[in-house]
Amino acid sequence: MSLLVVGSVAFDSVETPFGHRPEVLGGSATYFSAAASFFGPVRLVAVVGDDFPEAEVAFLAERGVDVTGLTRRAGRTFRWKGRYDFDLNNAHTLETHLNVFADFNPVLPDGYRDSEFVFLANIDPDLQRTVLDQVRSPRLVACDTMNFWITSKRESLLKTLKRVDLLFVNDAEARQLAGEHNIVKAARAILTYGPRALVVKRGEYGALFFSGEQVFAASAYPLPALFDPTGAGDSFAGGFMGYLARTGKLEPAVMRRAIVLGGVVASFAVEQFSLDRLRSLTPDEIRVRYAEFKQLSHFDDLELDLFPAGS
Amino acid sequence: MSLLVVGSVAFDSVETPFGHRPEVLGGSATYFSAAASFFGPVRLVAVVGDDFPEAEVAFLAERGVDVTGLTRRAGRTFRWKGRYDFDLNNAHTLETHLNVFADFNPVLPDGYRDSEFVFLANIDPDLQRTVLDQVRSPRLVACDTMNFWITSKRESLLKTLKRVDLLFVNDAEARQLAGEHNIVKAARAILTYGPRALVVKRGEYGALFFSGEQVFAASAYPLPALFDPTGAGDSFAGGFMGYLARTGKLEPAVMRRAIVLGGVVASFAVEQFSLDRLRSLTPDEIRVRYAEFKQLSHFDDLELDLFPAGS
Repeated sequence: MSLLVVGSVAFDSVETPFGHRPEVLGGSATYFSAAASFFGPVRLVAVVGDDFPEAEVAFLAERGVDVTGLTRRAGRTFRWKGRYDFDLNNAHTLETHLNVFADFNPVLPDGYRDSEFVFLANIDPDLQRTVLDQVRSPRLVACDTMNFWITSKRESLLKTLKRVDLLFVNDAEARQLAGEHNIVKAARAILTYGPRALVVKRGEYGALFFSGEQVFAASAYPLPALFDPTGAGDSFAGGFMGYLARTGKLEPAVMRRAIVLGGVVASFAVEQFSLDRLRSLTPDEIRVRYAEFKQLSHFDDLELDLFPAGS
Repeated sequence: MSLLVVGSVAFDSVETPFGHRPEVLGGSATYFSAAASFFGPVRLVAVVGDDFPEAEVAFLAERGVDVTGLTRRAGRTFRWKGRYDFDLNNAHTLETHLNVFADFNPVLPDGYRDSEFVFLANIDPDLQRTVLDQVRSPRLVACDTMNFWITSKRESLLKTLKRVDLLFVNDAEARQLAGEHNIVKAARAILTYGPRALVVKRGEYGALFFSGEQVFAASAYPLPALFDPTGAGDSFAGGFMGYLARTGKLEPAVMRRAIVLGGVVASFAVEQFSLDRLRSLTPDEIRVRYAEFKQLSHFDDLELDLFPAGS
């Protein structure tokens, strides 16, 4: 089924304790598209400047990403510069240059308007609704957001959430959005804002999925070599949404597999800088790591005669 | 099979965002004993002052805890005062009064020397070895420790670890002990210090188990009401060791169930202050929550035709 993503395509300059990479491919829509492309085609809406290399457009197109919606404008492409310390769970933004992204006005090519699965990456919630106004009758709309929008455009974000089926946030964002420290209570509050389901991303600790009374806890794959967490959340969302669009199903068991696959693809994405690991990743590697996740978290039922008499 | 614990019995004064409880029952050996007692008898070695109520001794004895090794000395019982903020993962110690615990010299009653399963709670590593010198031929020795011993008595701790099969620590302690931030690398390093297995406790994020090449990731049960995290780690160890001693088996599948049961018992312990929830807990509640943990983390295998041709 058709899958649409709207977000950023960028150049990142990243410092981690393991190295430094200046001006490498990044952006929420880029990571999402590459991750989702393992499961089927992706329709991309984003903007780049006249400095964006054709070779990177070709990389996406070869992966099955429809780049009709990738607009090229005069000026420079969005640039982000960030640093991670040994605690790779937190990015420290050093510089943000929106450049052509400052005037991003997402316009969907006519051929995108029948998209059934929609992912609104972390952009201004006003723009997220502009996108939804252009999609005819999506089956599932998911969105991401961040602390900046939660504090500076809360009312607009709440308007967007009323039109969203599934929200992806991290622990801190969920707590901030709900104004509640306990993550279960925060999730229950957020599910009253509009979304039918919530994915709480917890970095190296995995992810929680909440929908109605259902809770699913996915562990993260413990990685001996984690090089660059940039794009982990968008890769997670890409694996998740790519799988849903591939199967076309939304029942609980499918959602659970989607979350694990999101974690699988994200676990690869962080093994190298930029999208480098996603460029070399194969479906077989995804299959093998999915089986490893299953082995990692499997345990048997309890024995029936466990407790001593009278305890 | 026989299970021995050596540690502290104390009075805690605890402040959390949800309330304040002065002078309530606490201590590592207390939480451990109560948690393990669901699965079978426990032999306790600890010291209390002449202010310790007979009613609390009776509570432990009624739960099947052998209190022959609970020594009463002139003076006051160990007291700890601590505070938790909304981030309930970290305790802030306000006061520690060792009192009679300052001269704790664990002497095992003769009837304890054949103990097969031994848990050395978080005490001076010199004392931990004193205990081991008195146990004839244990099948499994587990120990806990903390940042204080890792920094101030590292050499002694390393001597203890050479005689230990299983170490329980939290994330930060594992990183500090190994001098390595990545948790997988830290675990691999610690497994070269002596222990054959390592449990990394991660509070609300669950636990990781490392042994040889095997890794098991257990999720924590997402609790809407978490009142007092004091004793969570010792309750975890108690559920874990109590189950192992009950089954008498040490194979990987049993270890995994033990970790989940440790998480189950700990998840109850934190629902109320002090040992209050453990006092009312029943085997049926443990069974039901174990099944909920299984449901919480279950996901199916992948479909065979998942990836589009040519991807």
